[in-house]
Amino acid sequence: MNSADALLCLREYLRNEAYAATVVPTADPHAGEYLPSRYACREWLSGFTGSAGTLVVTLEEAALWTDSRYFEQAEQQLAGSGIELMRMKMPGTPSITEWLQARLDEDDTVVLDAELYQHTEYVAMEEAMPPGCVVAIEGLFDEVWKGRPALDFHALIALPTSITGESTRSKCQRLRERLEMGLPYVYLITACDEVAWLCNIRGTDIPYNPVALAYAALTPDQLLLFVDRSSVGEQVHQHLIDEGVELRSYQDFAAYLRSISQTTVRIFSGNRISELHYQAALNHIPDHPLTPVVLSDPQQGGVLARLKAQKNEVELAGFRKAFEEDAKAWSKLLQWIEQEIDGGQLTEYTVAQQLIAFRKESPDYRGESFTPIIAFGPHGAMPHYHCSSPEEAAPIVRGDFLLMDTGAHYVYGTTDTTRTIHTGNPTAEEVADYTAVLKGMLQLSDARFLKGTRGASLDILARGEVFKRGHAYLHGTSHGIGHYLCVHEGPQSIRMEENPVPLEVGNVLSNEPAIYLTGRYGIRLENALIVKEDEKENTFCRFETLTKVPFDRKCIDFDQLGPECTAIFNRLSPNSSDN
Amino acid sequence: MNSADALLCLREYLRNEAYAATVVPTADPHAGEYLPSRYACREWLSGFTGSAGTLVVTLEEAALWTDSRYFEQAEQQLAGSGIELMRMKMPGTPSITEWLQARLDEDDTVVLDAELYQHTEYVAMEEAMPPGCVVAIEGLFDEVWKGRPALDFHALIALPTSITGESTRSKCQRLRERLEMGLPYVYLITACDEVAWLCNIRGTDIPYNPVALAYAALTPDQLLLFVDRSSVGEQVHQHLIDEGVELRSYQDFAAYLRSISQTTVRIFSGNRISELHYQAALNHIPDHPLTPVVLSDPQQGGVLARLKAQKNEVELAGFRKAFEEDAKAWSKLLQWIEQEIDGGQLTEYTVAQQLIAFRKESPDYRGESFTPIIAFGPHGAMPHYHCSSPEEAAPIVRGDFLLMDTGAHYVYGTTDTTRTIHTGNPTAEEVADYTAVLKGMLQLSDARFLKGTRGASLDILARGEVFKRGHAYLHGTSHGIGHYLCVHEGPQSIRMEENPVPLEVGNVLSNEPAIYLTGRYGIRLENALIVKEDEKENTFCRFETLTKVPFDRKCIDFDQLGPECTAIFNRLSPNSSDN
Repeated sequence: MNSADALLCLREYLRNEAYAATVVPTADPHAGEYLPSRYACREWLSGFTGSAGTLVVTLEEAALWTDSRYFEQAEQQLAGSGIELMRMKMPGTPSITEWLQARLDEDDTVVLDAELYQHTEYVAMEEAMPPGCVVAIEGLFDEVWKGRPALDFHALIALPTSITGESTRSKCQRLRERLEMGLPYVYLITACDEVAWLCNIRGTDIPYNPVALAYAALTPDQLLLFVDRSSVGEQVHQHLIDEGVELRSYQDFAAYLRSISQTTVRIFSGNRISELHYQAALNHIPDHPLTPVVLSDPQQGGVLARLKAQKNEVELAGFRKAFEEDAKAWSKLLQWIEQEIDGGQLTEYTVAQQLIAFRKESPDYRGESFTPIIAFGPHGAMPHYHCSSPEEAAPIVRGDFLLMDTGAHYVYGTTDTTRTIHTGNPTAEEVADYTAVLKGMLQLSDARFLKGTRGASLDILARGEVFKRGHAYLHGTSHGIGHYLCVHEGPQSIRMEENPVPLEVGNVLSNEPAIYLTGRYGIRLENALIVKEDEKENTFCRFETLTKVPFDRKCIDFDQLGPECTAIFNRLSPNSSDN
Repeated sequence: MNSADALLCLREYLRNEAYAATVVPTADPHAGEYLPSRYACREWLSGFTGSAGTLVVTLEEAALWTDSRYFEQAEQQLAGSGIELMRMKMPGTPSITEWLQARLDEDDTVVLDAELYQHTEYVAMEEAMPPGCVVAIEGLFDEVWKGRPALDFHALIALPTSITGESTRSKCQRLRERLEMGLPYVYLITACDEVAWLCNIRGTDIPYNPVALAYAALTPDQLLLFVDRSSVGEQVHQHLIDEGVELRSYQDFAAYLRSISQTTVRIFSGNRISELHYQAALNHIPDHPLTPVVLSDPQQGGVLARLKAQKNEVELAGFRKAFEEDAKAWSKLLQWIEQEIDGGQLTEYTVAQQLIAFRKESPDYRGESFTPIIAFGPHGAMPHYHCSSPEEAAPIVRGDFLLMDTGAHYVYGTTDTTRTIHTGNPTAEEVADYTAVLKGMLQLSDARFLKGTRGASLDILARGEVFKRGHAYLHGTSHGIGHYLCVHEGPQSIRMEENPVPLEVGNVLSNEPAIYLTGRYGIRLENALIVKEDEKENTFCRFETLTKVPFDRKCIDFDQLGPECTAIFNRLSPNSSDN
C-alpha cells in the first residue's frame, strides 16, 4: 500500500470514529532509534524514511515536522504527497499543537496510539491542548493498517564477562544500591539496549541496534526478563538462570504491569515508557494512595542509563580493539578508493559495500552500527544522506569532497567514524573549511574540564571554529556510543542545547563537527572519545581518542591549524603521515 | 550591638515566640546586591560582611552558607562566633534544608522575615521542608533588632535622553507591546535599577548602585512611581510628569498592592518580589478565580530586564566614552605605582585612593561602581578581597602580583576593569599562569556565535585555558554591566552554570577569567564587551571590547599565547606597547 492509500485508510478511520486528527510520532514502546517495521507507522503514512519526524493528519490536511538533518530528504520524499513539510526550529514554523489548534473546532478530539507515545510526550501534548481534546487509545494502527507487519524475533546471544566486564548479578546489585528506599519497588526497564546491558544479552530484532525486543523489571529480589521465549536457546537460558534472571513472555509485559501490587513503588523514566504501559502500570491505583506509587527515575538521564554509559575497563579495552580493527578496514578502503577512482566504476554504493567487505575480514565483525553515509559532492551537505539503491548512488570522480560516515559492531565494541577526503585538488576555500572542522575537532579532543561539566559547556570548542568560517551545523557535536550496543546512546551529549547530565568518567562519545554548504559539499570529521580522569589532577577529566583512521593531509592548512592544534594533530594521528 | 549580643536577642525572640529556627538571607525587598543598612540583618547577626551568604540560627546552633569567593573572609570573620562556616558547592556541605531538618523536631516551626525573602526563594524553602514547618511573618527584625537603622533617602536626579537614548514614554510603550494580553494588568517593578532605567532617574540611596529606593507599577495606561516624595525636587518632578509618571509615596506600595482589583492580572518575576509584597498582591484573591490573576514575567529573565540589558546606541556610545575616560585614570595609576613602589609608602589602600583621585579629575565621574579590590600577593587569591581599613592594607613592594579590580560610574556609563601587574620579575610559572588567563580572556573576546547562544556555551573559551594549567576559578566568567546603573546586572551571564537567557545584541558584559593560588597569588584580567551583530553574517554575533587599559607585557609568553591570540591581543590593545 502506498502512502496516499495509507492516508486514505487513516482518514476513513478518523471519520468513522469521529476523530478530528491524529499525531503519529516516530516511536515504539521501547523508545528506540530504529523501529521494528511494525511501528513504522509514520513512514507507512508519509513515505518519508528519515529517522526523525512527526506526522500530523487532520481530515483535510497533513504536515510533517522534522529537523534540519532531513529538510532536503523530506522535501524530496514528500513532494506531491499533499503533506506539508514543517522545518523544526526555523523562524515561522508553528509547533504541532499551535498548528493543530488553528485547525480544530471546540469539541474536536485528537486521537493518539498509546503504544506510539512516550508518557512524557503524551502529557506534554495533553497539556498543550484544550482539556479533554487529546485521547490515547490502544491498537489504533492495528485497526487502520491492514497487513501491518508482526514483530520479528530472532535468537538471543549471551555475552560473557570477558566482554561485558561485569555480571548481571553485579549490575543488579549496583542498581539496587541506587534505588534502595525502604519500600517495595519495581524498576521498569523498557528500552531494549538497557535490558541488553543489564542481562548481558544481544539480539538482532532491530536493524543496526544489536538488541532483542525485550522488557525487564527489577525488584529488590527479582530480575524479570520479558522476551520471546522461543528465541532463547538452552545455553542462553541456563546462562540467564545462573545470573538470577527469570524469564517471562514478551507478550505478558502489560499484564505484569497491571498485576503490580498497589503498595509497590513503580520507578521509571517517563520518556522511555509508553503511555500504554504507563496506564497499565497505574490504572488500578486509587487516586490518592497513602504512599507514592510512582517515582521518576532518581537520577538525571536514568540510573541504569548512567551506569551503562560509564564503561568499565573491559568494555574500554574492547572499544580500543574495535577501533583498531575498524581502522584496518578504513585504511584498506582509502587505498582502494585511490586505486579505483579513475576506473569510472566507483559510486557511493560501491564504496559502502567495499567498506563492509573489508570489515567482514574481521571474524569479530557483527554488522554495521547504522546506515552507512557515503556522500559525494553536494550529497555531503545533507548530514544524514544515504543512497537508497545502487541506481541512485552518485558516481565518485576526481575533484570533490567525499564524506564517509560509517560504523560497525564488533563483539567487543561499536565504532562510529567520519572521514571526508578530497578526490582532486582542493581549493583554498575547501582547505580553509576542512581545516576549520579539523581544528574544532582537535580542540574538543584536547579539552580539560572539571568533573561534573555538562557537554553543552564544551560544544563551542568544536563548533566555534565553524562559526568563525561563517558557517553553522545545527546537529549535536557529540553523542554517546554504546558498547556493542546502540551507536547513539544517551544520556550524555555535547551539543548547543542544555543537557543537565554531566560527562562522566568512562563515557564514550563521538566528536563530529562539520561544515555543510547546500548544493556544494559537506565536510564532517568524526573521532570517538573516552572520558578519562586526568592523570595529574583528579578533579579534572580529559579525553582519550579512540579513532585511528588518517585524515586527508592535502586538505589541511597547518598555518591555519596553528602550532597548538598541529601538536594535537600529530599526537593523535601518529601514523597520519602514512596517508 | 556586636553580633554575639544580636544572636542572643534573636534567640530570645525565637524562644519567646516558640519558633525553633530562622533563616536570614542576604536580601532586601528590592532584590538588590547592596543592601541598605536597614536590611543588613545577616551581617548584624554574624559579623560576616561579604555580599553573599545565608545565616541559619536555631536555639543552639548557627551556621553560615557562603560561596567560594568568601571562604577565606568568612572563616576569619566568623572565628570565635560559634557560627559554623558552610562552604557551598563543596563535597559534603549539606544544603540549608538538610541541615535544618537534621536539627528540628516534628512540630518545630522555622520563621522567616517575609520582607527578606524573595517569593521563589520562600516557595523553595517551603517545599523543601515538611508541610507547615515554614512561616513568613512581617516585621520580625523590627522586633528583634533594637535600634535598627531607618531607610536613608537622598535626592533623585533625572537623566536626559541625550544620555539614556530613550524616553520613559518610549520604554513604557515597548514594555506594553510585550505585555499586551487583552486583559487589565499591572506589571510590578520591584528592583530599584529596573525602576531607575524605566523612569530615567538615578539616586544615591544605596552604596555603589546609583539608584533610588523605589518601586513602580505599569498598567496599560499608567506608570506609578513609588518613591520618597521629599527626595523629588521640583525640576525632577516636572520631568517625571512630562514623561507620564505618576508619583506615589514609597511607603504606600504594599497598600497599593492590596488595592489592585480582583480581575487585574498581576505580572511579576517571582525572584524579584518579596514574599511580603507577593502576599499583599494576592491575599484578597479567592482561591479559584475565573481568570488567572498572577502571571510570571512573560520572558526568561524578565521583559524589562531584557530590554534594559540591550543597550541602545546612545548608551553604547556612553559606555565607550566611560571606558576611555576610565583608561586615563588607570594609565595615570599604573605610572604612579611604578614611580612610588620603591618609596615604601605604597599600600593596597593608597592605590585604591589614588585611582579614585585620578578618576575624580573627570567632571563626569559619579563614584565607584563597587568596592575597589586592590589585592597584593596572597590577598589576590581571595576573589573579593578588600582591605577594610588603611591599617589593614598590605604594603605593596617589589616582587609579587598586584591584582586591581575596580570600576566607576560616569554619568554616561559604568566601568569594571581588572588588571594584574607584577611588581618584580615574574617566575616562569607566574608568566605561564598570567598568559593562560590572558589567552582565555582573548579567546572569549574573539568568539563568534549564533544569535540565541546562551552564555554557558561560551564560558569554556575563557575557563578552558585555566583548566589546562590545572587550575579552576569557581565564579562566573562574565556578568552584565548596567548603564550608569548596577555594575552587576542580569539577566545574561557567561558562566559554567546553565542560564536560559541568551546573549543579545547590545548586552554589555565583563570577561574576567582568573587563576587563584591560595596563600600565593591571584591573577585576574577583566575587559568589558559589547555584544554586536556580526558585520558580515547577521545570523552571528561578535564582541566589541570596551576596555583600553594596557596589560603587563613582561608577564606574557607570546609563544604560549600563540599566533592567533597574539593577533587578537595586538588588535585589542594597540597601545599596549606603551606599557
